[in-house]
Amino acid sequence: MRVNDRDYRAVWMEGDDVVVIDQPLLPHRFAVKHLKDHHAAAEAIRDMTVRGAGTIGATAGYGLAQAYAEAARQTDSEDAFAAYIAQAYDTLNETRPTAADLKHALDRVNAAVRRDSGGRPAAAAARAEAEAIADEYVARAERIAAAGLPLLPDGARVLTHCNAGWLALVDWGSAPAPIYLAHRQGRKVFVWVDETRPRCQGAHYTSWEFMQEGVPHKIIADNAGGYYMRRGEVDLCITGADRIAANGDVANKIGTYQMAVLAKENGIPFYVAAPTSTIDFACPTGDDIPIEERDLDEVLYVSDGQGRVRIAPEGAPAANPAFDVTPAAYVTGIITEHGISKPEALGALKD
Amino acid sequence: MRVNDRDYRAVWMEGDDVVVIDQPLLPHRFAVKHLKDHHAAAEAIRDMTVRGAGTIGATAGYGLAQAYAEAARQTDSEDAFAAYIAQAYDTLNETRPTAADLKHALDRVNAAVRRDSGGRPAAAAARAEAEAIADEYVARAERIAAAGLPLLPDGARVLTHCNAGWLALVDWGSAPAPIYLAHRQGRKVFVWVDETRPRCQGAHYTSWEFMQEGVPHKIIADNAGGYYMRRGEVDLCITGADRIAANGDVANKIGTYQMAVLAKENGIPFYVAAPTSTIDFACPTGDDIPIEERDLDEVLYVSDGQGRVRIAPEGAPAANPAFDVTPAAYVTGIITEHGISKPEALGALKD
Repeated sequence: MRVNDRDYRAVWMEGDDVVVIDQPLLPHRFAVKHLKDHHAAAEAIRDMTVRGAGTIGATAGYGLAQAYAEAARQTDSEDAFAAYIAQAYDTLNETRPTAADLKHALDRVNAAVRRDSGGRPAAAAARAEAEAIADEYVARAERIAAAGLPLLPDGARVLTHCNAGWLALVDWGSAPAPIYLAHRQGRKVFVWVDETRPRCQGAHYTSWEFMQEGVPHKIIADNAGGYYMRRGEVDLCITGADRIAANGDVANKIGTYQMAVLAKENGIPFYVAAPTSTIDFACPTGDDIPIEERDLDEVLYVSDGQGRVRIAPEGAPAANPAFDVTPAAYVTGIITEHGISKPEALGALKD
Repeated sequence: MRVNDRDYRAVWMEGDDVVVIDQPLLPHRFAVKHLKDHHAAAEAIRDMTVRGAGTIGATAGYGLAQAYAEAARQTDSEDAFAAYIAQAYDTLNETRPTAADLKHALDRVNAAVRRDSGGRPAAAAARAEAEAIADEYVARAERIAAAGLPLLPDGARVLTHCNAGWLALVDWGSAPAPIYLAHRQGRKVFVWVDETRPRCQGAHYTSWEFMQEGVPHKIIADNAGGYYMRRGEVDLCITGADRIAANGDVANKIGTYQMAVLAKENGIPFYVAAPTSTIDFACPTGDDIPIEERDLDEVLYVSDGQGRVRIAPEGAPAANPAFDVTPAAYVTGIITEHGISKPEALGALKD
């Protein structure tokens, strides 16, 4: 999408470098970061230089492609090559335990290399597959935009949470993709943007994306969404997802469950937008999704990307679950590249 | 309550000064502030040097007592005296539109002076009434503690919002008063403390109070309360109130409504603790309570009392409703100095 009058994706390759938008600098400074090897790519995922299911998946795919090129240069036996790749796979895979897209991308790159083993060099096959993964995210996001468009008549007022925008999904995004499309088609849409503590991805990223694209919106404290629902100022909710279980339970940023319960109580439809790669058919229910507990400093401090302020007393105890699970019963529909599905009917999307 | 091994209230008088704990400096620095006249008292309410229904009420009462002393010194006719008091009343009354206790305290001081007009000087009568108001807050808080105590068996896990602690209610507090009493009696109690964006009163004040008193607790993002409810880790919710309508609807810090809806959905009792002075019998329902919209910078920035960081892009739009209304249907009970009432039965508490 547009940044300062140029088109960007959230991650791409230039030569042997993986290049990413340095997201923790946003919204105050826009800069890109060159990741020179797969260790740097893994670190960028772990430290959340990149975030969001799709951008994590694409970065992991590119990172494993880097590892294939590194292994070709640095190893001199098949065993050493295989060991290098296995180690790189683990390094990349262990960065974020809740992200389904990460493992999916790594497995795809490995499978493509195995399929291609008689032909071109493994590194070339890996690189081509990583590029295909990124391109498919973008193509799917465009189809998600089209699938969700009918939910947004002229004048629609949407409540969203966290950032499932193009920064999080290579390009276009999932939750805001239909909003971008409706806005570009000239429909009036308005978005309430949860700031999304503790990391403030709504205030940091979603608002920044919407300002770049000109989408009317207001940032609110996470405490205020229910207030606007009850006042009749929210027509629908759309969030992204980090992982969707086979039964339609949705793991997403902490606070999503609360929004879904409040939407149900107020008779407001609650939609989840995500590419089908986010659906983990091997995961029967939300109870089987591990929930990441992150650094307590995220709660005890608030950061603007550079500085931070401590909001709690010295030595104060805290807890920081990064995700929650919204049971399928609260989900009106799941918007994927194949259209809008009832959460109980996800099986039809299985390959 | 205890601060650094000394007993404090949140507001008191020393000579002609109103003295308050400078709450925006907390939790990082403890200091008191001397307010030399009623203008300074009004400003301390307006800029939230003091906050919370009771502490605002007591400060307003003391401020009007200051005004009586000022008028006695500075005016030389009954008309000028009356005009000075009327102007001071308005100055103090207009500082915070949602606080019922504020007007209540001002009217009580004026009424005491009128009752006392044949006897001692007006300033002395006003001062005595202001002291009585503060003492009554403390006595009522102690009775609220006793009334709520049976809700907290050994091992109880409570979720609370904002700060309705002793800083907010002169001493003891409302929502945490039963918790303090249970803890002092040796019962094991644990409290989930919502940080309470945008002003972070939970992280700033409630956690600080609990640390001073030794009450086990954890600060969480406002997004996480529902997560712990659904996991079965919350036995009950207790919040304070800024104003309670005659029908039991409760106006309190933004986010309270969300907590109440989530409690109902998870079968968890939701209690509101407040002195009966918070009940506005002249206000039929929550729809009649004006909701204050505060400075957007509260959402766009996060402050630690001294510094602040900007979490949103330059020029980003925002909205900042400071309170919400929780309909009586979500309220299990209202804990007052007279015991626990069903919200639909508040009429029995009317004088």
